[in-house]
Amino acid sequence: MSEDVIILGIDPGTRITGFGIIKLSGRTHTALDYGCIRPPTKAAMPQRYRALYEGIVELLDKYSPHALSIESQFVYKNAQTALKLGMAKAMALLAAAQRDIAIFEYTPMQAKRAVVGTGGASKEQVQYMMQRLLHLAELPTPQDAADALSLALCHAHQHTKNEICHV
Amino acid sequence: MSEDVIILGIDPGTRITGFGIIKLSGRTHTALDYGCIRPPTKAAMPQRYRALYEGIVELLDKYSPHALSIESQFVYKNAQTALKLGMAKAMALLAAAQRDIAIFEYTPMQAKRAVVGTGGASKEQVQYMMQRLLHLAELPTPQDAADALSLALCHAHQHTKNEICHV
Repeated sequence: MSEDVIILGIDPGTRITGFGIIKLSGRTHTALDYGCIRPPTKAAMPQRYRALYEGIVELLDKYSPHALSIESQFVYKNAQTALKLGMAKAMALLAAAQRDIAIFEYTPMQAKRAVVGTGGASKEQVQYMMQRLLHLAELPTPQDAADALSLALCHAHQHTKNEICHV
Repeated sequence: MSEDVIILGIDPGTRITGFGIIKLSGRTHTALDYGCIRPPTKAAMPQRYRALYEGIVELLDKYSPHALSIESQFVYKNAQTALKLGMAKAMALLAAAQRDIAIFEYTPMQAKRAVVGTGGASKEQVQYMMQRLLHLAELPTPQDAADALSLALCHAHQHTKNEICHV
């Protein structure tokens, strides 16, 4: 019998970073927690990154996930956006690396395909499917939290597939 | 009589991050240390960011700088470069923010203008001027270390100017 696997999904952003934590027991998955980290908007940028880092550390300490599933993009609006996003993302990567947690990256398209079946799914479809697949009492909000849950679930699917391959 | 001010200059990069530490005593400045942090090239990216973070933390603990002077660019080759650079830079910003160290950003052009007199100075001119201005026994290498020293010195000039303004 396989052990439980806990996966933390992170949708990084400077203004709002979504998180979603999923427990995978065999072939069933449960949402342990989801929501977002919103650094104080009036703080200077370095203090906002610090708040993000501390928020992620808190989640890692509380749930001890086995894996971090984080959004990775290949196309950015512009270099300044990429720079800021890189800084936000780096907070999650550092916190996970400090705890030797395995890190996996998926594009938004891969995450959508995994949970809705098509990489072109709308944000509302992702929210709807997250509610259904994880048997949540309500639609997960904000959108960033739903996206983070979809990243965690996307990795859970990979994990299950890999288990099959290795049997 | 003014107190000594210690400034850490950082030229961030994923492969190599230059650092330079300057002590400003009144109007004289001395280089306390300079060099570079080279994360293990074969490690996964998150572990390389972790090595960068730890290297910077070590410098902050050893020299307790009053200010961090870090390179800030407005133009990037492409978004992927900006993303990686943002992650490297974020390691320095986080480490400084965690210690409430004041953070200042200067473009390469501002740093060059401050130490060579022209924003279009060559890398060799920056190295040469760093050796002269800081009375170093030899040319500071690698280039990233010289650039980091120029960032620290650039901030030292600002600091001195501000002191004059406030008299």
